[in-house]
Formats: sequence, C-alpha cells, structure tokens
Amino acid sequence: MKSIGTVYLVGAGPGDAGLLTLRGAELLRRADVVIYDLLVNPELLRLAGQDCELISRGKRQEVSQDDLNALMIARARGGKCVVRLKGGDPYIFGRGGEEAEALAGAHIPFEVVPGVSSISAVPNYAGIPLTHRALILNYTVFTGHEGDDKSGSALDFDQIARISGTKVILMGVTHLHELTQALLTRGLSPKPPVDIVQRS
Amino acid sequence: MKSIGTVYLVGAGPGDAGLLTLRGAELLRRADVVIYDLLVNPELLRLAGQDCELISRGKRQEVSQDDLNALMIARARGGKCVVRLKGGDPYIFGRGGEEAEALAGAHIPFEVVPGVSSISAVPNYAGIPLTHRALILNYTVFTGHEGDDKSGSALDFDQIARISGTKVILMGVTHLHELTQALLTRGLSPKPPVDIVQRS
Repeated sequence: MKSIGTVYLVGAGPGDAGLLTLRGAELLRRADVVIYDLLVNPELLRLAGQDCELISRGKRQEVSQDDLNALMIARARGGKCVVRLKGGDPYIFGRGGEEAEALAGAHIPFEVVPGVSSISAVPNYAGIPLTHRALILNYTVFTGHEGDDKSGSALDFDQIARISGTKVILMGVTHLHELTQALLTRGLSPKPPVDIVQRS
Repeated sequence: MKSIGTVYLVGAGPGDAGLLTLRGAELLRRADVVIYDLLVNPELLRLAGQDCELISRGKRQEVSQDDLNALMIARARGGKCVVRLKGGDPYIFGRGGEEAEALAGAHIPFEVVPGVSSISAVPNYAGIPLTHRALILNYTVFTGHEGDDKSGSALDFDQIARISGTKVILMGVTHLHELTQALLTRGLSPKPPVDIVQRS
C-alpha cells in the first residue's frame, strides 16, 4: 500500500522572497507538488526541484476552493509531498483554516508553517511600528474586502472606530472611501496619521 | 575615513529556528556583531561566523535600553555589520521602534527585517486560525504585560471587552487572573473558547 503524503500549508510571506522562512524553503525544495496563489512571489517557485509539479491557483480563483481542497487531498493520497503556498500567513485572512479543516476531514496529515504577515511587514518597511512601549499597547486588524457575495458588512464599525491603538486594514484600497466614511461617521478621530500602502 | 556600518533589526521569529527568514539567516552569516535577546533560540547563533562578536542582551535586561542603543551605534561607527536579533517581529511589542529612533537620531543606516510573530505562529501551531472567512473578520492584539514601572493599566479594557473577533493577549500569563477579571467584569462573554499557550 502506498503511504499517504503530507500537505504543508506554507506562508510565503508578504512578497519579498527573502521573507520566506527557512522551513518554508526546505519544504519547497522537497515538494513533489506546489499549489501556489498568484500573489506569491514567483521567485520562490525556483526553489522547487526540476520534477516538481507547479499548479497555479489563478488570480480570479477559477479553481474553486472545493476543487483546490480535492486536488490537495488527491495528490496526498497519491503519496506526494504537497506544498500549498499561500501569501502572508496561512491563518490570517488566508483561508488556511478552511483548507486545514478539509484536510483533517479527509484524514490527510498536514502541517501549517507560519509566515511573515503583511500586517507587520508592510508597516515595517514603511517605518511604522505597530506598537510602542507606553504609547500603543494594542492594535486591531480587519479586512477591507469581505468578498463580493455579501450584502452589507459584517464588520462592527462602531467598535472598530472606538477602540484605541493602531488599526490595520488589509485589502482596503478598493473600498477605501466607504471604509473611511464608515469609521469617521462613527466617531473615529481624523487627527492621527494615516498611511496607505499599495502595490505599485 | 572608515565607512559606517549598517544595523539590521532582525526578527528571529517565535522560537522554532525554522521560522527565521532567509534574509535574517543571510544577515546572521554576514554579521560582525550580533546583539541578541535571551528569548531568541540559541540555535540561530550558530549561523554566525567564527569571528562574529556575540553579545547577549540578558534576561533581566541588565543592559539598559540606552546602553544597548549606544552599543549598536558604537559598533556601526566602527564600521561593523551589526545584527540586532529580536524575538518575534521587531516592530510588535519588541521596542524595535525605540531602537530605530535611536539609530535614525545618530544617523546610522539601518534596516528592519520583519519576522514571524508569535501572534499568529502560536495559534497556528495550536491549530487556531486568527480569522475565518465570513465568521471572523477582525482580531485585536494587546499586551498583558506593561512593565513594572507603571501604576494602573493604560489598556482600555472596556473597548477590548466589547470588540468582536479574535483577541490575542501577549505575555499574559503572569497577570492572567487580573486580565480575565478585567475583561469579564466589563461584559466579555465567557462563552467563546479560550486557549492559553505557555512555554513549557
């Protein structure tokens, strides 16, 4: 009987290839199959061996989440070492939780390899610490993009407007105006500095 | 004239040596001086060369922050490549912001290399995604340890108790009882699951 392969949900980091982890690089070198999101830096794929099967997830997600889960499971059942390479950290707005659930449900051994998240890396590169001793003791992260299948927002803007500390909005550029209005009309002070970082 | 060296504020990640970034490893190999916190995995120091000067920050911080800043600046002025190796991410509860300010004030070139933060890595290893599509769209991070020089807490527990989404408390074990009480008396529901992860 062929033994079942393992699936590694690997965080590729925020873009800069140097921000992949050592463990992530080791697994890419060992992988039989890499299924990667298009947001992932293509330089990283060069770490994979000559015979490695490279599968792109597609920008518009033409491969559905169910199909992707089925593909990971099928390759692992075929005895392959599968790397699922995801932007940032797999468990922060990355649907890694859903993929882990699917793998657990199919009894496929898997491991999650955390990655550097854009949540800290982007402010880092822009020179902005998320916290500062005695000044900023907490920060809140939320998504500015909830998907197009939703009517209205599930975010509680009242709470987000009121909480102190640094606020990080991920994927906020498309709905920037609505997000800004939602927070300002709920009492967010317009005084603290705001930085908007967008892929150039 | 001797040229000034660069200081690299490098995030060592949350503990597992495999979670150092490729860029962090490269800089450790090149460093003339490494100044490391005791929380950093000592395995990582083996990446440094034979002639590299290794300086421990000390567990009880017997080297004051001012002395540490002065040391980084002195070594850089001596033309050295200095790696300041910090646990987790340098700009999240790591005083990296203060160190960057000191370097900028002294006109020392510096670079911040983000690291995997325990904020996501610890929940990752425990199987807990911080977010989940359509269920959890935001999370809030705060420190449970504000230092011993403070009277009272600067955290706004009212807001933290009320905001939805995942809550991550860093360094919360020492004051666990007080933190729990502060949040529960301010209306935090005792129903959602809680996970406490501590270094064993």
